[in-house]
Amino acid sequence: MPLLSIAEVNQLPFEEFIQIFGNVVEHCSLCAAAVWRNCPFSNIQNLSSAFNEFMDNLPMIGKEGILRLHPDLAGRLAMAGALTQESTKEQASAGLGNMSTDEREKMSRLNSQYKEKFGFPFVICARQNKKEAILKGLEERLNNSMDQETLTGVDEVKKICYLRLLDIVDKNSKL
Amino acid sequence: MPLLSIAEVNQLPFEEFIQIFGNVVEHCSLCAAAVWRNCPFSNIQNLSSAFNEFMDNLPMIGKEGILRLHPDLAGRLAMAGALTQESTKEQASAGLGNMSTDEREKMSRLNSQYKEKFGFPFVICARQNKKEAILKGLEERLNNSMDQETLTGVDEVKKICYLRLLDIVDKNSKL
Repeated sequence: MPLLSIAEVNQLPFEEFIQIFGNVVEHCSLCAAAVWRNCPFSNIQNLSSAFNEFMDNLPMIGKEGILRLHPDLAGRLAMAGALTQESTKEQASAGLGNMSTDEREKMSRLNSQYKEKFGFPFVICARQNKKEAILKGLEERLNNSMDQETLTGVDEVKKICYLRLLDIVDKNSKL
Repeated sequence: MPLLSIAEVNQLPFEEFIQIFGNVVEHCSLCAAAVWRNCPFSNIQNLSSAFNEFMDNLPMIGKEGILRLHPDLAGRLAMAGALTQESTKEQASAGLGNMSTDEREKMSRLNSQYKEKFGFPFVICARQNKKEAILKGLEERLNNSMDQETLTGVDEVKKICYLRLLDIVDKNSKL
């Protein structure tokens, strides 16, 4: 799909807006449905800020809910080819489709420990991290407190969201 | 599906919980993903309260977002048979599939006025209202302010949510 100008974004009827932006926060179309209220947007930063602000204003269990709706990194869904289109591309770009047996076992073990501790999967912006950085991040973030880690996870969701927006909206386009 | 006891609900893995409860708030699986944090639930009222409290704690644009994710009553999707399973059943029970031409035109006109004014569709618990009461509600609620109507709409979402929970969970079951 060719990139949309911000003027084109602002002209979308709600249903199309949701079709296009409903998954910039994974499986969480409420985010797009909420930020639509801020339309017209002046540029992609303004649109991105609206998503970030909405997530910041959610109660803690809502932030955790967003993380819980994310897939495991290199998990069952990836093996089965059942990820969303966006996640498939992102996980592949981090080299997660191409791990040694040792790496895969380590990832699987750390993922389980993480999910056991926090009740949501480890979320990291896979397009900004290669598999080595992801494994390191997993080990380090396992030491965080619940609240600390919820906020860290949501910060990663914001980065993922912004990169997904860049795939849809022309970043040089302004009102 | 046979009704689940509350003990069975509490034992559901997160993915199954979302499959089963992800649409008790229409198209808004974040609600179920958030309230899962409150598990174990002591009974259906406790589960229902968790959904209500989460919706109450959303910022206003989140409440509006929930309403925007609802389908029009007797609208385009209903005509095309493209509603969710839950909405199809609910709209039929209100007699909305069985309106005279006059009623259908009035409904369509009021729905358009409503959506023009508020930016989200008119939401009412169709299982607790027949078509006459729905038309009356539409006319009356058109006079509300934006904030008043957002809260009124969310109160209807809570009723719809509770009736959907009753279709899934045994109301006599306690921990």
